[in-house]
Amino acid sequence: MKIGVFGTGMVGQTISGKFAELGHDVLVGTRDVAKTQANIEPHPFGFPAFSVWQNEHASVNLGTFAEAAKHGEVVFNATNGTGSLNALKLAGESNLNGKILVDIANPLDFSQGNPPSLSVSNTDSLGEQIQRAYPNVKVVKTLNTVTAFLMVNPALVANGDHTLFMCGNDVDAKARVTGWLKSWFGWKDIIDLGDITNSRGMEMYLPLWLRLWGALGTGMFNVKVMK
Amino acid sequence: MKIGVFGTGMVGQTISGKFAELGHDVLVGTRDVAKTQANIEPHPFGFPAFSVWQNEHASVNLGTFAEAAKHGEVVFNATNGTGSLNALKLAGESNLNGKILVDIANPLDFSQGNPPSLSVSNTDSLGEQIQRAYPNVKVVKTLNTVTAFLMVNPALVANGDHTLFMCGNDVDAKARVTGWLKSWFGWKDIIDLGDITNSRGMEMYLPLWLRLWGALGTGMFNVKVMK
Repeated sequence: MKIGVFGTGMVGQTISGKFAELGHDVLVGTRDVAKTQANIEPHPFGFPAFSVWQNEHASVNLGTFAEAAKHGEVVFNATNGTGSLNALKLAGESNLNGKILVDIANPLDFSQGNPPSLSVSNTDSLGEQIQRAYPNVKVVKTLNTVTAFLMVNPALVANGDHTLFMCGNDVDAKARVTGWLKSWFGWKDIIDLGDITNSRGMEMYLPLWLRLWGALGTGMFNVKVMK
Repeated sequence: MKIGVFGTGMVGQTISGKFAELGHDVLVGTRDVAKTQANIEPHPFGFPAFSVWQNEHASVNLGTFAEAAKHGEVVFNATNGTGSLNALKLAGESNLNGKILVDIANPLDFSQGNPPSLSVSNTDSLGEQIQRAYPNVKVVKTLNTVTAFLMVNPALVANGDHTLFMCGNDVDAKARVTGWLKSWFGWKDIIDLGDITNSRGMEMYLPLWLRLWGALGTGMFNVKVMK
């Protein structure tokens, strides 16, 4: 499949690497290709610069957001949540319309220190903002509640016995994404919360997730919904 | 033990009934005792009026917030979160100082419809507001992430195999509350997130909890943290 990925950070790298490993044709979009290619400094959070990472993932290509959007039959938004709307603007509505956009991003605002707050929450969410701005894009929010390595390999924790959340307005799009999550990554328990307004709940879980990370000393955990 | 409970709603009734069943001496506080006694209308959410409930829980006494605060060696705040600060004001700082206040409340704002938003969130929380307003009260936030029946009987779901969160500034107070949660109610897995600022994460989980309730069709669920 032709897949576009927005974002060159840890999430973008991890999902792009997995897509390539599965044999998909991946084009990662960034704001400034030359700048991303020139940067070799590790990110302050410890993951490598994209250009360094790309040396070992040669089948993953880099382009502009617009090129990645045009390339993808489906597009994954793995940008920083505070930059997502601008990334989508640069991608261009006509390159996105009619497609599924899997929104993995969280609107984390680090400007007031750590742990971050959310730049939008409570009465709105990033998932809703994106869907409102691009009414002809099929936004499916998912994967934003686990760390990158778990997204593509849930079996790394408790043999995959934990829960993923999903929401979006388009039922067929959610069914397709659910199929990919199961067959590509091995997710077993996926709860469809309903329409895109449920992004609010999924994104507002992040402050708890960040504090659990602190308390547990690792991001390699997830919650399982017990009934 | 002498226990004060703020709030006559479903949570106040459920925990008070359990405390009485365990042989504790419970005084439930309300704003207007005569009004609470006179009201026999079921709540719109389906639970009985306190005075009707009390007919079958005769050992549970009713008084003002101040009387309940004075009575309790420990006080449980089970008011609506949007009314908690006012309830505490009516209770009186001198009746609360030095005591453990177990804050179960959630700042749910139903004014814009259902599901509710939070009246405080993201950069502050109800737990923090209470601790700031009453610096000599030992605020322990817990139990706010599960439905009332599960609070006092976690075994009702998955034989109790799920997780409760806790936070607060006073380490000894948290240890005492943890002991009560285990011995009185049967909680097994309690994660201490740290100081009271972690209320933010615990309260911001509610929007996800409410949506899970909608998706699952029941409030009888909880999350288990899987590592």
